[in-house]
Amino acid sequence: MSGAAVIIGAGDATGGAIARAFAGEGYDACVVRRPRHLDQLEALAQSIRDTGGRAHAFGVDARDEDQMTALFDQVEAEIGPIEIMVFNIGANVNLPIEETSARVYRKVWEMAAFAGFLAGREAARKMIPRERGTVIFTGATASTRGGKGYAAFAGAKFALRALAQSMARELGPKNIHVAHALIDGAIDSPFIRELLPDVDALRAQDRLLDPEAIAAAYVSLHHQPRTAWTHELDLRPWAETW
Amino acid sequence: MSGAAVIIGAGDATGGAIARAFAGEGYDACVVRRPRHLDQLEALAQSIRDTGGRAHAFGVDARDEDQMTALFDQVEAEIGPIEIMVFNIGANVNLPIEETSARVYRKVWEMAAFAGFLAGREAARKMIPRERGTVIFTGATASTRGGKGYAAFAGAKFALRALAQSMARELGPKNIHVAHALIDGAIDSPFIRELLPDVDALRAQDRLLDPEAIAAAYVSLHHQPRTAWTHELDLRPWAETW
Amino acid sequence: MSGAAVIIGAGDATGGAIARAFAGEGYDACVVRRPRHLDQLEALAQSIRDTGGRAHAFGVDARDEDQMTALFDQVEAEIGPIEIMVFNIGANVNLPIEETSARVYRKVWEMAAFAGFLAGREAARKMIPRERGTVIFTGATASTRGGKGYAAFAGAKFALRALAQSMARELGPKNIHVAHALIDGAIDSPFIRELLPDVDALRAQDRLLDPEAIAAAYVSLHHQPRTAWTHELDLRPWAETW
Amino acid sequence: MSGAAVIIGAGDATGGAIARAFAGEGYDACVVRRPRHLDQLEALAQSIRDTGGRAHAFGVDARDEDQMTALFDQVEAEIGPIEIMVFNIGANVNLPIEETSARVYRKVWEMAAFAGFLAGREAARKMIPRERGTVIFTGATASTRGGKGYAAFAGAKFALRALAQSMARELGPKNIHVAHALIDGAIDSPFIRELLPDVDALRAQDRLLDPEAIAAAYVSLHHQPRTAWTHELDLRPWAETW
Repeated sequence: MSGAAVIIGAGDATGGAIARAFAGEGYDACVVRRPRHLDQLEALAQSIRDTGGRAHAFGVDARDEDQMTALFDQVEAEIGPIEIMVFNIGANVNLPIEETSARVYRKVWEMAAFAGFLAGREAARKMIPRERGTVIFTGATASTRGGKGYAAFAGAKFALRALAQSMARELGPKNIHVAHALIDGAIDSPFIRELLPDVDALRAQDRLLDPEAIAAAYVSLHHQPRTAWTHELDLRPWAETW
Repeated sequence: MSGAAVIIGAGDATGGAIARAFAGEGYDACVVRRPRHLDQLEALAQSIRDTGGRAHAFGVDARDEDQMTALFDQVEAEIGPIEIMVFNIGANVNLPIEETSARVYRKVWEMAAFAGFLAGREAARKMIPRERGTVIFTGATASTRGGKGYAAFAGAKFALRALAQSMARELGPKNIHVAHALIDGAIDSPFIRELLPDVDALRAQDRLLDPEAIAAAYVSLHHQPRTAWTHELDLRPWAETW
Repeated sequence: MSGAAVIIGAGDATGGAIARAFAGEGYDACVVRRPRHLDQLEALAQSIRDTGGRAHAFGVDARDEDQMTALFDQVEAEIGPIEIMVFNIGANVNLPIEETSARVYRKVWEMAAFAGFLAGREAARKMIPRERGTVIFTGATASTRGGKGYAAFAGAKFALRALAQSMARELGPKNIHVAHALIDGAIDSPFIRELLPDVDALRAQDRLLDPEAIAAAYVSLHHQPRTAWTHELDLRPWAETW
Repeated sequence: MSGAAVIIGAGDATGGAIARAFAGEGYDACVVRRPRHLDQLEALAQSIRDTGGRAHAFGVDARDEDQMTALFDQVEAEIGPIEIMVFNIGANVNLPIEETSARVYRKVWEMAAFAGFLAGREAARKMIPRERGTVIFTGATASTRGGKGYAAFAGAKFALRALAQSMARELGPKNIHVAHALIDGAIDSPFIRELLPDVDALRAQDRLLDPEAIAAAYVSLHHQPRTAWTHELDLRPWAETW
């Protein structure tokens, strides 16, 4: 395989694992994160290169249209055709509606939905002329169900799911596979390690989503033959109550 | 009945009918629309007063937090406790994803989702201390299903539905009834009259949603006893294919 | 109003309240229940007649095709055209899958789905030539979500919802209004009074669904103008967690 | 891998491909179909053995509880522990509601839902003590949406989906993976070859679901690590309108 896999939101856990997995398939992993995390991003890229893969770090604010357009242009010009785009930015907040500021509501949407639109649109613009490509958006429990305190987060995740559905119906007949992954549970990540005290016990029992398993599922979506494409893939630990 | 019914997005068809219907129930209809439509809005308010109701026109940009906060404060100070808030702003666009500008994507969300958040939050802030009130959001076919060309519109409508679900689960136990109306079909409105050539035939056969029927359904939601509240109400013409 | 309202599953709580409500609108309430409950059914009919309504009791096994065909023929011949048919039979069981007998699985389906099919089809056969009528099926939380122990009950309720959706799409264009009511919570009924110890406190706080409120919602569905029909109506108490 | 993979509804297309795929993974493929198709079933088993796999044919009426109980007992006694059970019986009919006989409505349910319950329950009974196993039910477009003429078929498929959801929530915490595959499109099968005139052109363009691709997806579900299980997997051809 050759070409680029662009991973927007390549943090320590899921995004990083996805980047490693696509690099393992022979793609140039283009990992993207806000400029202030550029050190960690470079470390991620280096770790991929250390194991024989190709990887490139891009410090980009995914909410900035100009930066995103430039990013996709640069990848195509310098690295290769974008075969895979994964949008993986989360923005989980929980606040009572009356305490949710307009700033927070807008920011959550900009990170988790508007940036997804920019990423999806730029990927589409590159893929449509080639009639080829895979686009995957990372969803969450809040993508299909609003809940107490989730006006902002569910709003953004619902919007991202609407984007995925609309793009799938629009681009499927152009041979572009658009999928939405519903990650329904706690991921084994630095974020969750701060929240949960018993994370080691949970991990030992496979009760946390393993980022590498998520990444393997994303790679599988990309490899599906076009006679049988999946649009929405839910993933949760075996013991999860849902 | 006394108190205020605030209708955000009180245009010529649905919003106007909703305002008339709540005025007919004895509430002070507070009709809200962008300042540049203030003439039409005043005409609507006058027409309600002409038939014995109470109505007040407010030229407000619903996407502006300060204007919205001031609006809700003013209504409560000058007119009465807000018993009903209806958010009824639409922003229907259909564009291929690759031709959807960031400006359009953002604007559709600001009109149909962000403004809904501001309206919902301000209503919640007034209603929570009283533990009483009804909040209704107007949805559309695109609220539950993305489609070709609908990345922006479905994105905003999905987000609004997430808001309605989250607020309902949060505020129901505070005795505030939050509902989402799924308007699934063409409404008999000036907008549709420009789009469809055979509107008279369709109307004669009841194949368009009658704004007064929609308004009556909204009033019914408000009057539901709290032992049996509806959260999501779909409305479509009898002959609609869905 | 004249004509018949056939209520299949007219027990002590919801079905009885629905029968009373349609009788109050001027219809002949035809209340139907298994022959072994005929005494209670006659008492229900008498109580409706005592308050000036018209009511008729029919002891029928709703799972028996011949009995159901005969019932609908008899009502049309002796009482009047069937304007409303409400199917209201429940069959709530909760059993681990490995302990669910084939007999129980089949019986729950026969009561809650197959009988609904017979009732829906017979109603359709009478209503289609007249191009007029309302058909309402009573759903439950388990109509949209399977759960632990609910293989049988959710199976039957999902099937009933499929029937309602299929009939709505088929008969809407024939001017027959088919609706599905999602009753999402505990109903104030003899059944629940045995299950819950604190039923008086719950009722005092409006935390149980009031059968009369459900009945009023069913009547409202029947009265909706055909420009704005609802297909699925959820009903739950204000404080319900969902 | 060792142990048995029981495929209920192992016809010429999907079921056969699923059996071949699990045999290719090293499992004993136990293919099950009505006794009157035993010749074709034996030919399928022989074709698997001819390519080095292990396969066993069972002529069983899946709607018959005694036959099904005996089948699962026999497989466990003579072949090995059942690691995978796939229920793949369809029963697609489309009839106006008023022309749907009780016999057809019941038979469609018996084939597509009741037999699924028997298969799922028997699999559960074998797997629960071992706390291990995969159960996959084959769904269809009609599993999530009723439609004109689909009262019987959607009724059965909705019920099967309720079974899958209930079993998943019940058995997941017992380490048994229960999944539901939504096959949303025409499968390249003898059945479709009779219905569609241009099947060769469609196949050449990958516009029909390839049974081998479906089978590969089922195998993938079985191999998912338990930190990231999928419950519902939709599969459709790239160019499908949905």
